[in-house]
Amino acid sequence: MMLDKRSPIPVYYQLRNIIQKKIQNGEYKEGELIPSEREFSESFGISRMTVRQALNHMVAEGLLIREKGRGTFVAKKKIEQRNIDSFSESARKKGLTPSTQVLNFAQQRVSEDIAEILGLSSEDSVYVIKRLRSADDVPVALEEVFIPVRLCPNLEQYDLSGSLYRIINESYGISIAYMDNVIEASVPTAEEKKLLKASSNVPLLRISGVSFTTNDQKFSYERDVYRADQYAYNARIYLDRK
Amino acid sequence: MMLDKRSPIPVYYQLRNIIQKKIQNGEYKEGELIPSEREFSESFGISRMTVRQALNHMVAEGLLIREKGRGTFVAKKKIEQRNIDSFSESARKKGLTPSTQVLNFAQQRVSEDIAEILGLSSEDSVYVIKRLRSADDVPVALEEVFIPVRLCPNLEQYDLSGSLYRIINESYGISIAYMDNVIEASVPTAEEKKLLKASSNVPLLRISGVSFTTNDQKFSYERDVYRADQYAYNARIYLDRK
Repeated sequence: MMLDKRSPIPVYYQLRNIIQKKIQNGEYKEGELIPSEREFSESFGISRMTVRQALNHMVAEGLLIREKGRGTFVAKKKIEQRNIDSFSESARKKGLTPSTQVLNFAQQRVSEDIAEILGLSSEDSVYVIKRLRSADDVPVALEEVFIPVRLCPNLEQYDLSGSLYRIINESYGISIAYMDNVIEASVPTAEEKKLLKASSNVPLLRISGVSFTTNDQKFSYERDVYRADQYAYNARIYLDRK
Repeated sequence: MMLDKRSPIPVYYQLRNIIQKKIQNGEYKEGELIPSEREFSESFGISRMTVRQALNHMVAEGLLIREKGRGTFVAKKKIEQRNIDSFSESARKKGLTPSTQVLNFAQQRVSEDIAEILGLSSEDSVYVIKRLRSADDVPVALEEVFIPVRLCPNLEQYDLSGSLYRIINESYGISIAYMDNVIEASVPTAEEKKLLKASSNVPLLRISGVSFTTNDQKFSYERDVYRADQYAYNARIYLDRK
């Protein structure tokens, strides 16, 4: 792999592509130190500025991690989730052991905002389930799910540290077909920082939305936060929304 | 609206809901200063710590903005995009004037990684279109689109500052049905910071993916970055991916 200085692709981006290739073919392995700026600069005959630009780009993309005084390392691949509640499968595919901790389970009168979102009366009660999801004991996601009690009476009798949608399906005969999600990013709150053991400037992906049954009935409301350095969200988006 | 100290909902979260309500019903308006921690603490009879927790939470959620020495303000609502390439419509719905600047248009030999993604041969050429999208002259998104030249010959003759998918449809008879997207978040690169006029710690939403035609053929590859303080992505996600 060589640089082509006459190519319309900027040199720093060509270098980025070369480094990415070396990560993909296993020459540079997950968690390993890559060559220094000086070494790249000498072996490719380009300025250290250009090398730095390539590495900065890859750090921002989450492909590399820079540690002060130690050097630049290949980032661990993110967990790529492809479906609702397949967090565990996605982690296993990456060779990680998923675990789920139920932080809170409560049955309470629905709050005004959730009542509005789910079309409930202010007299209705909901289960509020808060869970922490980890991969190889590294906290990755915080989930908060609101389920109307009348749709799933006695939900407390089940082990909620597995797939919630499986319990809903097997025990209540309710199948979730799709979710209308809002996807945002922002920095963590103090509580999120603590629970996710995240630093202040790690961006979080915030995915919140309503789940719908196969009959297009609203079922639950969920708001999840994911450490964006650990997690990528895969979604097939249709141009025509029904 | 009152606080209920016996409620299972934490007091800080109840205060958050009250403030959110006041934003929704227009009592606190976009861009306006809200009461101080001391004022909230006195009028609700709660500690300043609890008030601060509520405000911090809302700052992290992007509902409030804190400016050092000035106070806490209601954040402008984010642009909520519901469909592929409806950035302009989404901005207009919010009462903002969208604009698009073509930063770069090039025809070049396809790079190895894009060839692999789109299933092209290394001899193929692609158009690379880089655009900056703004709302009321505030930069919101950077888009980079890769389109095989043989699918859209002479694309350069069109005005590319409008909807790309409309041109593709009207001039080449190609209809895009869906995209397989990867959604991530991270901090900006130096170039992104400059083009998006973003500060270093503004998280960016990174949405990249392949578009497919109504015949399930791969069409283009696109990678976009959005300022997460300006933008939220809405998507209907189906549990069963075809």
